[in-house]
Parts: sequence; C-alpha cells; structure tokens
Amino acid sequence: MKKVLVLGAGQLARMMDLAGAPLGMDIKAFDVRTNNVVHPVDPEHIYGDLKNGIKQCDVITAEFEHVAHNTLEECEASGKLFPSSNAIKIGGDRRLEKSLLESCNVANAKHYIIENKNDFDQALKQLELPIIFKSALEGYDGKGQWRLKSADQVEKTWLDMANFIADATSSVPQGIIAEQMVPFDREVSLVGARNTLGEIAVYPLTENHHTNGILSVSVASSINEKLQANAAEVFKKMAEKLNYVGVLAIEFFQVGEQLLVNEIAPRVHNSGHWTQQGADTCQFENHLRAICGLPLGGTHLIRPTAMVNIIGEDDISNEIYTIPSVSMHWYDKEKRVGRKMGHINLSGSTEVELAQRLVHLSTLLNKESFPDLSEFAKSYFAKVSQ
Amino acid sequence: MKKVLVLGAGQLARMMDLAGAPLGMDIKAFDVRTNNVVHPVDPEHIYGDLKNGIKQCDVITAEFEHVAHNTLEECEASGKLFPSSNAIKIGGDRRLEKSLLESCNVANAKHYIIENKNDFDQALKQLELPIIFKSALEGYDGKGQWRLKSADQVEKTWLDMANFIADATSSVPQGIIAEQMVPFDREVSLVGARNTLGEIAVYPLTENHHTNGILSVSVASSINEKLQANAAEVFKKMAEKLNYVGVLAIEFFQVGEQLLVNEIAPRVHNSGHWTQQGADTCQFENHLRAICGLPLGGTHLIRPTAMVNIIGEDDISNEIYTIPSVSMHWYDKEKRVGRKMGHINLSGSTEVELAQRLVHLSTLLNKESFPDLSEFAKSYFAKVSQ
Repeated sequence: MKKVLVLGAGQLARMMDLAGAPLGMDIKAFDVRTNNVVHPVDPEHIYGDLKNGIKQCDVITAEFEHVAHNTLEECEASGKLFPSSNAIKIGGDRRLEKSLLESCNVANAKHYIIENKNDFDQALKQLELPIIFKSALEGYDGKGQWRLKSADQVEKTWLDMANFIADATSSVPQGIIAEQMVPFDREVSLVGARNTLGEIAVYPLTENHHTNGILSVSVASSINEKLQANAAEVFKKMAEKLNYVGVLAIEFFQVGEQLLVNEIAPRVHNSGHWTQQGADTCQFENHLRAICGLPLGGTHLIRPTAMVNIIGEDDISNEIYTIPSVSMHWYDKEKRVGRKMGHINLSGSTEVELAQRLVHLSTLLNKESFPDLSEFAKSYFAKVSQ
Repeated sequence: MKKVLVLGAGQLARMMDLAGAPLGMDIKAFDVRTNNVVHPVDPEHIYGDLKNGIKQCDVITAEFEHVAHNTLEECEASGKLFPSSNAIKIGGDRRLEKSLLESCNVANAKHYIIENKNDFDQALKQLELPIIFKSALEGYDGKGQWRLKSADQVEKTWLDMANFIADATSSVPQGIIAEQMVPFDREVSLVGARNTLGEIAVYPLTENHHTNGILSVSVASSINEKLQANAAEVFKKMAEKLNYVGVLAIEFFQVGEQLLVNEIAPRVHNSGHWTQQGADTCQFENHLRAICGLPLGGTHLIRPTAMVNIIGEDDISNEIYTIPSVSMHWYDKEKRVGRKMGHINLSGSTEVELAQRLVHLSTLLNKESFPDLSEFAKSYFAKVSQ
C-alpha cells in the first residue's frame, strides 16, 4: 500500500484521500497551522509531527503552494517530494511564475516587477492603463490586488501597495507584479497531469466564472479543438521544463482565439473539481497516480459537467438532490464569510440539459450566497440553446 | 451532519463511508467480531461499544443480513434502524424470504421447506429432479448448498444435510429449502432504493456471471424494457410490502422472458458496484440518501459498465491502469482464498468498446485468480459485436 503525505490539510487533501482509498493508498495530511500529521477526513486523528510523517510515507505532495520553504526543503531532502519544491515555490511567487512563462516562451500579459517606487514608476512608463497590480506572494482569490484605471489614482495606489509591501511578514521579500489589464473574452483553465515516466494527460479546457474575485462556477462542455491543442502545448512546455510530476493547473485569459497564461497552480485545482463526475478519472486520482508512478487515467469529457462552489454557506436545501446528476461535495468546515465550504457538480447528457439543470439548481439556492448564479445559468442556457 | 452507524465493518460499510463523506455524513461501523464501533476505512480507530454507537448516531443501517437478532432488536428499539429488523432478518433466512415472495405473489422457483426427514421425503415427492437444497441461514456464495441430480444420491444428500442441520450453532433453528432447479438462461439482478418518503428508484438490470459459486462479473449494458419493467414491479411490490427503507437487491433467474426471484439482499449489493462508475448516483450514496430522508439520486445507466471481482488475490498488474475508464476499488483486506479483496469497474461509450476493454483487461489479469474472465469477455464481445 502506497503511503502518501500531503502538505496541507484542507479540502484538496480531503478529496485526495477519498480518491486514494479505493486505490489502496493511505493518505495523511500535514496541517501547517498545528504542525500535526492528521487524517485528511477526520483530523481529530493525529499521527505525530512532520518528521515522523516524512519517515512513514512513500511519497510527499502538496495541496497548496504557500508552504513554508524550510518545510519544502525538509521534504525534498527525503527524495519523496512530488512535484519538486522548485515547482511548488513557482506557484507561490508570481515573480518566479512570470520568469518561467518567459523562459518557456509562453504568451502572457505584458508585465513589470515592482519592489520599490522606482520600479513602480518604470511600470507606469512601460505599461498602459488600466493596470492590475498583484502581490507576488500569497495573492489569490482577489486578495492583494489593486486596479489602476486613471492617472489620478496613481499616488493612492502606490501608498496602498507600499504599505502592503512594508507589512509583509514572509521570510521571502514581498513584491508586486504590474500587469497590463487584458480585455479578455473569458477565463479558461487547463488541468493536466504528468507522471514520473513523463507521460502527460490533460483534461478539456474549463470555462471559469468568478464572483467577487472567487471562482464560483466552472463548466466543461463544448471543446474548441484549436484552443485545446494550444493549451495542451503550453501545458507540455511548462510541465517538461519543470520536470513536473503531479497535477498542474494553468489559468488562461482567452482573447479572441489566443490564450494568455494568467497563472499556474502546482496542484489539484478548484476548476478541476468537475472531473469527479465528468471524466473517467478525476484530478485527485490522476494526481495520486502521477506521483505514485502509475499510468494516468482517462481525461476526456464523458458528458457536459459543471461545478458550482459553495462559498460562506452551509445551509443548502435538500431539494437540490431532486435534480438528476447533482453530486454534493462538502468539506466539513466551519462556516466563515468567503470560505469555500463545498461544491456541487452536475452533468447533462447534452449541453442544453446541463444548462437546464444549472438553471433549476440556481432557483433552489439562495441569492445571498449565490448572487449571480441565476444570471450565469440563464446566459449559459441562452448560449447553448441557440 | 448526519451520523450513521453501519452494522458490519466490511467493504460495504467502507464504500458507504467513502460515498457519505462528500455528503457531509459521518459514518461509523460496528464490527460484529470485536463488538467495537470503528472507522469504516481505518478500523484501528475505535469509538466505543454498540450501546455508545447507537446513542451517538442519527441513523443505523446494516451492511449484511446475518446480524445477531439481539443486536438488531437493540438497534430497532432506538427507533433509528433502516431498513427494519424484519427486512434484515428476511434477507438472512430463506424460509422468511420464500414466505415474503409468496405473500407478494412474486414468481419464484417451486420449493419446499425442510426441517426433518419427513419434510425431505415430501420435498422429493413434490419436486422433480434435479433439486437444489440451500441452507435457510448463512448460506451464500456457494456455501451450504447441495445438488441432487439422480435418485441414487438421495441417501447421501440427506445424511449430509442432516449433519449440517445438527451442527448448526445459530440461536435460530437451521433449516433447508429444497428448490426445483431452474434451467435458467442467465442470472440478473435489480438494485434499487426506497427512501423514508416511499419514493423508489431502481437501477438497470445487471447480468451476473459466477465462478465457483461466487459472483465474478456483473455487466450493466443493454436494457430489455419489458424485463426491466417486470423487475421494477417486483421491486415495488416487495419494498412496499416491507415498508422498506434503503437499498434492496433482488437476484433473478431469467427463463426466456420470465423472471423468477432467486433471492433478495436487504442491503447494498456486489452486483451494484458498477453504479460507482456507471450511474449518476452510486448505490452507496442512494442507500445513505434513502435512510437519511433525502431524495434519491439518478439511477439510469450513463454508459455500459462492468464490474470484475478480485477474489483471493492482492497482486494486480499496474498495467491495468492503462485501460481507459478502469477504476480500482481495493477493500484493504488481508489476502485469503476465496475472499473478496476488491473490484475493478470499467466502462465504454458503447457495448462494443466496453467488451473490447473487458477482453483487454482479461489479458492483464492472471488465469489462476480470474479463471474464466477471458472466456466470459470473449463471449460478451461476440454477443455485442454481432
């Protein structure tokens, strides 16, 4: 039985465990807040500290990219860490990420790295408004971001960012990426896996919809062959450059028929949760297969499938279970504003059927917690029923 | 969070737990051998005795029908047991089962109940050879069965059975059912669920193939509408008669276009494991939904799917993971001859594709542990590719 230690004890480790148990794998999670190795589903069961966890397992992986560097180094020294600490660190620092994109010659938004006022002034010269500024470290789900749309906001924006940089407590110095804002048509992402043998399998591109800066809906349905091939090529370049092992997610801005990489996540990803119902092998199983040296499982789309995030809400009507194909995934977390509490997957035999079910679902969920699901569902229905 | 206690701590409780966790359910298992309530996946975690388990949970169910009657009564007294102890007991005693079939006016093989030599003589008068004798209690997977094909075996058969009855240690007296052997075309089973509101959902009929008296392969593929309606009607009659709550499996002999009930199992069933990959909602989730008062999930066939049991074997080539759609389900048990160790699900977008994959799978599994899989796969391929 393969024993896997996951750095991080959140929902991604939990879903890895649920996917790994049928494979005969034993999954434990390292909770970085308590420094305990715990059961990923029943964290009241504690199995000792990190040192012991590293010793007991066959393979180590991570469910998030903001793992302390000394922890990553301790894991890597055991020879069991997949993907590498280098790949994980790149996911946690936009400066390294941009550098990877450049070295792979992969299209992305024009950008400039800021660590001081001089850099900021240079960025304003080199980029045109509007500009989006993103913190290099720990910035995701809308945190640590600023938008500069007009010249009169320049001073205020710089003051905010300067304070943010000064307040940073990380052992790595904080920085800011200035990015030319891209007037993109939609955001899509590609989730794929590369195993220890170098085999690659990628899922279909997923269309992502955000609400208040957090992913709210992902849909995997119709496939644009050209875009898919383009995204798969980017995946291959980056995964091979990193000698990557595991699931890697790439978020893109789609502008016309062009894809610009927005960011990468060196792990299973929220926009890949639909694979639990829509693909032969879900991203969690494929991540485990990849890091344990197994052949990768099927990634093609079985049928159109969508994922709806449950954010800051723990009270969902049981009536949603009347919708065929609804599959509920709770994370067993205490309710907190803005917190990802679970997700709902649903499928249809056609895109129209999926859209109808999504519209139905939106009528059973409350407006406060799912503020624009209804609108999204209706517009998706309108699009696919043309 | 609904807390569910399962009587029995085998693979069925394990798979209920894996299906229940995403629903936000907390599943514990009562191990009848140790009298401990344990974690269904990690049984080294012990949560006290039965009394405490009954007190802590919201709902109690069973993964097998041979639960001691005093245990069932203790659970039923709490008002939390689904299905009822009556339904569970019927599944564990062929005499009660036959009586249910008769009272529901459901077609089944001509039979006679034997508790002494006089009954045996009567059975021989009323039934024609060949006759199959099955022990009333604890007889399954080929154990406690005798076949009488010619008159010269009568004495020997009676002696064997008389010894068997005399050796019984159960608190309920052992008995034997004599059944007219049916020259059936194939064995099929129907797995379905009925919830606390009386709603019913049944899966497509599954074709079952046995090897040495143990289920080896189940296939859910083409649907014969007339047979399906017939089986669904039988399910409805029996489930309503029992005021049944949970998943119930019915095994049938198919003779021409007629279905004769062979036996019932008041629980999730091995012939329903394909639903983990082939249906919107698997039997484990539907069982939990049923007993927890939730609407039932979709039971239609998404695509042709087969299940192959792994019996007495724990060493399977990783090469099977190269077959698209292969989904492995290990039960984390110690290897023992004849023991169900796990199962493999696989699907195809068409029956022919499924058959091809089944043939491919059979070439990667060893002949000793899968003695007639190759032959079965080839004949299935021949049938569907006509």
